[in-house]
Amino acid sequence: MKRSLSTVTIIGVGLIGGSFGLAIKRRGLAGHVIGAGRSQASLDRARDLGAIDEIAADVRNAVKRSSFVFLAAPVRAICRSVESIAPVVSRTALVTDAGSTKTAIVSVAERLWGSPVMFVGSHPMAGSEKSGVEYATPELFEGRIVAITPTDRTDRDAVEAVVDVWHAIGAQTIEVSPERHDEIVARTSHVPHVIAALLVSLVQEIDSETTRKLAGTGLRDSTRLADSSSEMWRDICMTNNANIREGLREFRKFLDQTIESLAQKDDERLLALFRDIVAYRKTLFGDRDNRNA
Amino acid sequence: MKRSLSTVTIIGVGLIGGSFGLAIKRRGLAGHVIGAGRSQASLDRARDLGAIDEIAADVRNAVKRSSFVFLAAPVRAICRSVESIAPVVSRTALVTDAGSTKTAIVSVAERLWGSPVMFVGSHPMAGSEKSGVEYATPELFEGRIVAITPTDRTDRDAVEAVVDVWHAIGAQTIEVSPERHDEIVARTSHVPHVIAALLVSLVQEIDSETTRKLAGTGLRDSTRLADSSSEMWRDICMTNNANIREGLREFRKFLDQTIESLAQKDDERLLALFRDIVAYRKTLFGDRDNRNA
Repeated sequence: MKRSLSTVTIIGVGLIGGSFGLAIKRRGLAGHVIGAGRSQASLDRARDLGAIDEIAADVRNAVKRSSFVFLAAPVRAICRSVESIAPVVSRTALVTDAGSTKTAIVSVAERLWGSPVMFVGSHPMAGSEKSGVEYATPELFEGRIVAITPTDRTDRDAVEAVVDVWHAIGAQTIEVSPERHDEIVARTSHVPHVIAALLVSLVQEIDSETTRKLAGTGLRDSTRLADSSSEMWRDICMTNNANIREGLREFRKFLDQTIESLAQKDDERLLALFRDIVAYRKTLFGDRDNRNA
Repeated sequence: MKRSLSTVTIIGVGLIGGSFGLAIKRRGLAGHVIGAGRSQASLDRARDLGAIDEIAADVRNAVKRSSFVFLAAPVRAICRSVESIAPVVSRTALVTDAGSTKTAIVSVAERLWGSPVMFVGSHPMAGSEKSGVEYATPELFEGRIVAITPTDRTDRDAVEAVVDVWHAIGAQTIEVSPERHDEIVARTSHVPHVIAALLVSLVQEIDSETTRKLAGTGLRDSTRLADSSSEMWRDICMTNNANIREGLREFRKFLDQTIESLAQKDDERLLALFRDIVAYRKTLFGDRDNRNA
């Protein structure tokens, strides 16, 4: 760590913000952690849990005093926070975030910061269908991948310092442009979420006592993604709109091909499809596939 | 238990057949358990694990000696077993199965059995993406739902006796017609499987080192269903073809509506959709939603 974080402000103390507070405090990375956010109950809880030391009376004043600011909220709320703090944040302070999409957030920051930009986009792959500071844990980021999304305007020392913080709390980082990040997570995360939600609708359409009894663990696992903050997902859909639509349209093509294979009773083609998928899925998850991992 | 099972033949000693053998032996329900199947390695393993007492030298001879026959294999293999054993099975023996679709299997049995039919369709909701007798456990069926799918031609004493066996090894049963069963599981299980498989394809299409790193636990869980026996799923697609196509076409309607909401940037409608789905999903799974449950 080249830079002491001394005073840190976390805006949004839910699962991610709360876990970040616990993690940096446990590692002694921060002298003093201030929490800010909409929900007084969450802030009180975060302070009780030790994720923050102080509840901000005024968020802009807290940010002024901070050498590091961490924004963790639904994407559009992060965009609004960036607009609100940009005029007051110290020009040497580091600002990063945990937003699920990056292009919208980074472009707001670049519009408001003078060059070089001290805002560094982050996206920790440590989400959960659980939300709320009550699930926060200092180990949340251990072994997780964090996407770091600088542009050619981002201050390179700021990038390194943010990377150092993530490494210090156990995460691995990967650098990727905001645009490429959003294209990839559209397919690895956002389209799967929308699809999981629609699978629940498909079952709901034939809801009955028998339907509920026959809904098993397979459906439960494959739709667990759907059980997460609706506001967060609305914001993701709004800020990664074109990529998600592109992914859904591509998915529809696959769907049509499969309906056609079924209509043709083409069992060889279906078998080949399933085998290919099992093989590729192993390259994605390999040994990480245990249900309890 | 009104009826002792004395000699039982299990045709197909994988996860389900092996677990059934272990469960009935642990509860002392069977005097002697004979295993049959294609794979000598699985049969040897099943005997070593104590799931069966004897490996059938000749499956038809084993079935002749049995008062209970359990068929556990991909659906079309079960259909072939039904055809093979029907001429030799005792007229008083009970036959049941664990096939994933029921109309095809039950209709083959009803065509071959004289009235009343001593074949009772079963479908234990105890599948797993794991397959093979090495994962078998006597507790597999405990607390699980088993669909029992008699028709008006099925012998009622046979139905009761099969239900008694499932209850004795810890399962709960629900009676439903083969046709209704297949309609419901198309949406609760088969369509979700096909969709999970296609989600993997969608990621594969943009495969890269970065894509693999950004593929997280959400994708892993939502596609876990795809990691299961390709042959089993080919047979499901062939024997529940019309219901699966109907479900996929309905899914495509939902998909089109969602693409439209995204194109319109209709955030209120997306928020309402996500909220409805979170609420309905709770009625399906409620407290059963823990990752490790």
